[in-house]
Amino acid sequence: MIKVGIVGGTGYTGVELIRLLASHPAARVEVITSRSEAGKPVAELFPNLRGLVDLDFIEPAIDSYQNCDLVFFATPNTTAMSQAEALLAAGIRVIDLAADFRIRDIATWEKWYGATHACPALVEDAVYGLPELNRDAIRGARLVANPGCYPTSVILALLPLLKNDLIDPASIIADCKSGTSGAGRKVSVGTAFCEVTESVKAYGVPGHRHLPEIREILQTLDANADLVFTPHLMPMIRGIHATVYADARGPADRVQAVFESFYRDEPFVDVMPAGSHPETRSVRGANTCRIAVHYLEAANKYVVLSVEDNLVKGAAGQAIQNMNLMFGLEETSGLEAPGMMP
Amino acid sequence: MIKVGIVGGTGYTGVELIRLLASHPAARVEVITSRSEAGKPVAELFPNLRGLVDLDFIEPAIDSYQNCDLVFFATPNTTAMSQAEALLAAGIRVIDLAADFRIRDIATWEKWYGATHACPALVEDAVYGLPELNRDAIRGARLVANPGCYPTSVILALLPLLKNDLIDPASIIADCKSGTSGAGRKVSVGTAFCEVTESVKAYGVPGHRHLPEIREILQTLDANADLVFTPHLMPMIRGIHATVYADARGPADRVQAVFESFYRDEPFVDVMPAGSHPETRSVRGANTCRIAVHYLEAANKYVVLSVEDNLVKGAAGQAIQNMNLMFGLEETSGLEAPGMMP
Amino acid sequence: MIKVGIVGGTGYTGVELIRLLASHPAARVEVITSRSEAGKPVAELFPNLRGLVDLDFIEPAIDSYQNCDLVFFATPNTTAMSQAEALLAAGIRVIDLAADFRIRDIATWEKWYGATHACPALVEDAVYGLPELNRDAIRGARLVANPGCYPTSVILALLPLLKNDLIDPASIIADCKSGTSGAGRKVSVGTAFCEVTESVKAYGVPGHRHLPEIREILQTLDANADLVFTPHLMPMIRGIHATVYADARGPADRVQAVFESFYRDEPFVDVMPAGSHPETRSVRGANTCRIAVHYLEAANKYVVLSVEDNLVKGAAGQAIQNMNLMFGLEETSGLEAPGMMP
Amino acid sequence: MIKVGIVGGTGYTGVELIRLLASHPAARVEVITSRSEAGKPVAELFPNLRGLVDLDFIEPAIDSYQNCDLVFFATPNTTAMSQAEALLAAGIRVIDLAADFRIRDIATWEKWYGATHACPALVEDAVYGLPELNRDAIRGARLVANPGCYPTSVILALLPLLKNDLIDPASIIADCKSGTSGAGRKVSVGTAFCEVTESVKAYGVPGHRHLPEIREILQTLDANADLVFTPHLMPMIRGIHATVYADARGPADRVQAVFESFYRDEPFVDVMPAGSHPETRSVRGANTCRIAVHYLEAANKYVVLSVEDNLVKGAAGQAIQNMNLMFGLEETSGLEAPGMMP
Repeated sequence: MIKVGIVGGTGYTGVELIRLLASHPAARVEVITSRSEAGKPVAELFPNLRGLVDLDFIEPAIDSYQNCDLVFFATPNTTAMSQAEALLAAGIRVIDLAADFRIRDIATWEKWYGATHACPALVEDAVYGLPELNRDAIRGARLVANPGCYPTSVILALLPLLKNDLIDPASIIADCKSGTSGAGRKVSVGTAFCEVTESVKAYGVPGHRHLPEIREILQTLDANADLVFTPHLMPMIRGIHATVYADARGPADRVQAVFESFYRDEPFVDVMPAGSHPETRSVRGANTCRIAVHYLEAANKYVVLSVEDNLVKGAAGQAIQNMNLMFGLEETSGLEAPGMMP
Repeated sequence: MIKVGIVGGTGYTGVELIRLLASHPAARVEVITSRSEAGKPVAELFPNLRGLVDLDFIEPAIDSYQNCDLVFFATPNTTAMSQAEALLAAGIRVIDLAADFRIRDIATWEKWYGATHACPALVEDAVYGLPELNRDAIRGARLVANPGCYPTSVILALLPLLKNDLIDPASIIADCKSGTSGAGRKVSVGTAFCEVTESVKAYGVPGHRHLPEIREILQTLDANADLVFTPHLMPMIRGIHATVYADARGPADRVQAVFESFYRDEPFVDVMPAGSHPETRSVRGANTCRIAVHYLEAANKYVVLSVEDNLVKGAAGQAIQNMNLMFGLEETSGLEAPGMMP
Repeated sequence: MIKVGIVGGTGYTGVELIRLLASHPAARVEVITSRSEAGKPVAELFPNLRGLVDLDFIEPAIDSYQNCDLVFFATPNTTAMSQAEALLAAGIRVIDLAADFRIRDIATWEKWYGATHACPALVEDAVYGLPELNRDAIRGARLVANPGCYPTSVILALLPLLKNDLIDPASIIADCKSGTSGAGRKVSVGTAFCEVTESVKAYGVPGHRHLPEIREILQTLDANADLVFTPHLMPMIRGIHATVYADARGPADRVQAVFESFYRDEPFVDVMPAGSHPETRSVRGANTCRIAVHYLEAANKYVVLSVEDNLVKGAAGQAIQNMNLMFGLEETSGLEAPGMMP
Repeated sequence: MIKVGIVGGTGYTGVELIRLLASHPAARVEVITSRSEAGKPVAELFPNLRGLVDLDFIEPAIDSYQNCDLVFFATPNTTAMSQAEALLAAGIRVIDLAADFRIRDIATWEKWYGATHACPALVEDAVYGLPELNRDAIRGARLVANPGCYPTSVILALLPLLKNDLIDPASIIADCKSGTSGAGRKVSVGTAFCEVTESVKAYGVPGHRHLPEIREILQTLDANADLVFTPHLMPMIRGIHATVYADARGPADRVQAVFESFYRDEPFVDVMPAGSHPETRSVRGANTCRIAVHYLEAANKYVVLSVEDNLVKGAAGQAIQNMNLMFGLEETSGLEAPGMMP
């Protein structure tokens, strides 16, 4: 049984980790920390866990995790970077669900996150935890940078195209739509029910932190890759829908076969039949990224539609998938439940 | 492995059965019938099941189920009553998720359902499948009438009060709020998105079919029991919130302890601490009925708040709980997953 | 042209006042104050008003309103009671949309609002601004206490019954469902989108501030009147649905005619045909309270269904209706727009 | 007083016409036809109109409209084309809210609408009713083709760019998000509450009927104009958000000024300050198209964000704006009400 610690268990990625791990056959949450809620039973904050999780939140401290094999950081950005080193030194492996270790270029990270990186040396050690891209490296990793929610959906939409040289890598536009849980559980007027429901808006058009993350990963595949990235806020809890446009190169008749072949053995990427339109609700609560690819002949463009649950494949589920890989478990362990529909 | 058939797998209770059984360790769906969708893969209609369910819908016919140990009817009312007898004769057990066998008084059933009962003899054999009331009888049953969604939430709110003679049994008012999935997947203007969202309304105030069902069960506990029942339609997919009022009898200071003690050993009824207000989302996707009881001194009334997921404890989950009992499995088998929150 | 000031224009009742007054033929907003947003254009906070409202928020100060004929307080409770006196002394009339002047019994007010009343002398002068009850008094009032949102829907449901002695006045249960805008625009975890949507819950079951308000008004009609009041939070922006139960007295066959006759000349109360079920969306944005009355013979109870838009007839619209009366305008002036459906 | 007839008043554009015209100072609905609801009071189907609209639906027939000055077709496609000629011959002007007269190229229309055009001669006479493009022609028109909801939002986003030669006209991508009311009031599984809420999906990626409409209009401005158009279904009632991408040409520093200047005198197009992100809810119920323009230097692209209420500026409101122009009224008459927020 893998003994797991969760730092910052009061946010949505934290409670989603707890929910998914409650059904995991080979991992058990031993400790959940929260500065603000220390002393309170986890199930008081999240009554869906009543009777299933007996833990109380405890004050975060380095020795809180001493019995753990693995610690997940479900914290705001800049927390993990100041604590990961001590944990790793104690032989505890780390998966950071925030952004501290996702970007290799320290200057880029510091520009977008507005902070000095506390631990640049570790960034090079960290593995970007997208199994479909880095499975082998994740298996051996001590420190995994769990990808952002938007980057997961966009990169998975593009991998088959870039790896098969089917697009102009500089022509990418990713128009993305996200449920509101992506903004986390912190309070703000902008995420209040009456401000979000029955409305749609773009945000961060001039620049969003997930842009440099996507760009850096894409450029490991093709040095010329670049993109326009536009996030939009949707009146729903869970789900990301990425609509990704790129100029086609070469003959387009193989593209459906390329996608199907590329993801044939992937347990968590589902390529739909030609002509399909995936719905975010089809992956609600599931660790699946569901993809359809269209070719528009008149424009000679591909349009890839890619959906995921931002809290699962876009956060906690992918973190558990990474844990499974790091500890030699079945990759799908604890992640087999179907999406909830309706 | 219990071999399961599902009649009418295209509605919301049908797909919920499939979703829950996909994670069941000791039961497997062998056949799913649908007159309208015969020949189509189940996963085409419900893409959340892609990669998890390989079955196609087939035409319903009596011999479709010949290899099954158990058949669930997830059909409209009046279907099961004409087919159950043949299945039982073939040694196949039956759980009807519709209303054909819920009401023992045939005249009452015929009045409320506007049809002649095709199989009154079987009604007497049928066990009302509320485990918290009829656990032992369910264990030995060949035919289980799975309770209605509203009745489950209302009866569970009242059992401790009626069994301990704590209320005037004729004073009950059940003001109930249900998500729209309770209306099923059939199309109608009244359940269209633009008609339901951002609105609340009562319906069936002069009389709703779940009223005689609740009344008959309550009267098995106290011959004088009767109630006013008002259903309301809510702009959400899943969830029932029952707000149940009754005049208190005798001293009220024990009521919290009575509820806690009454449900102490029940795996799927959760009594919250005194003063609580349960939320329907805390049971989304889970087989739990979560209850809080309040005593209003000035009015000398109890107010019981009871929430469930109408598709799970109110339908498919309870049906599987019944299956587990009928086949000697662990009662909680396949039903342990926490609710999905947020 | 009536010159209007609004204190606290950044909340939902404030912006609703501005929205409705923008179409009013005989009143014009001259000044809008806000401590937190002083200096910012109103239309920057509420872009629906771009091009229609040119005002900036200004710091609240007594002389801010010196050119006004009327000041609306759209502030949190306990603000108006410390400022109303000075305004009245300056000859400016006042409508308080908060609760400072709604309850005549000062001890009751102080108990429920947890504060010492700053201005008890004015409470006696204040008129409870429910035109269907106090039209004449409102016409002459200098200070109007605009009713709470729940009280409006509940009292309007009960007026014909109490005034015609058709119910046991001590038997009332008001089970109420409100949209989330009733909680205001202040931020809190409990009103975040991901916490509210797709869920229903009761709150304040042991006691809610609108209970003593309703009770005091009902007792002016019948000294024995009392009620149980249960508010519930709904996943929608606007709308209150009150489901009101009471034991019938005497013959019940006249009740539909009593309601129709009682409200025949009321411009903003609409009695639906017998057997109807009003929907909150039918009054979205409109100053209408729409009512249906049912008699349940078996229980000898009336069930009154009453819907309103909590921000309009439950707050800003009713305040304008009161303004119209106070200033001798057509009562319906500025309030004729139909509800928005869908 | 202009006497108005509405053909097909039971759909969402029909009821929106009635709602808006109820507040119009110079137009009155005289007749509303509906084959399916003939004989029923309009206010029975749409209770928001109780007390405001006294008409019954009547059977559609040519002489139903003999007293009308203007007839709106709020019907499915292919209805207006078979009736418009007779009305025009009788001196009655016509505004078609469906698509029968929007596309001048008959072969294109017939290909996308799968029908033979019944009245090609009239197509040439018809004026495309986008006042910001065709104001003068609309003033003199007998027959106006009211633009589609998506085309309105997309074309208004592009007009200043194309007319000022600021983009490569062949590089346009319009990624559009629409509320569900755009699908109309007809019943279908795909628009049921439980299928739409809490989910997002693209549809019609291989081709949607609004694509040739947009393309033909853009090509009247630049023969080389072409676009990729992707509609998405949103879990909300009203609102379209168009996110429009195009490659910039020439210096980009003037673009904000170009937009502001271009739309300075337009009553219903609102250009937000640089850096803004409009929300669809800011135009809920209003006839406004609200626009923000961003320049992305790295990609040398413009991103235009354009929001409207698909039932108002995208349908009924624009139709009334056209009526106002056709009959020499103030263009804003009956359309001044602010959007409803929250």
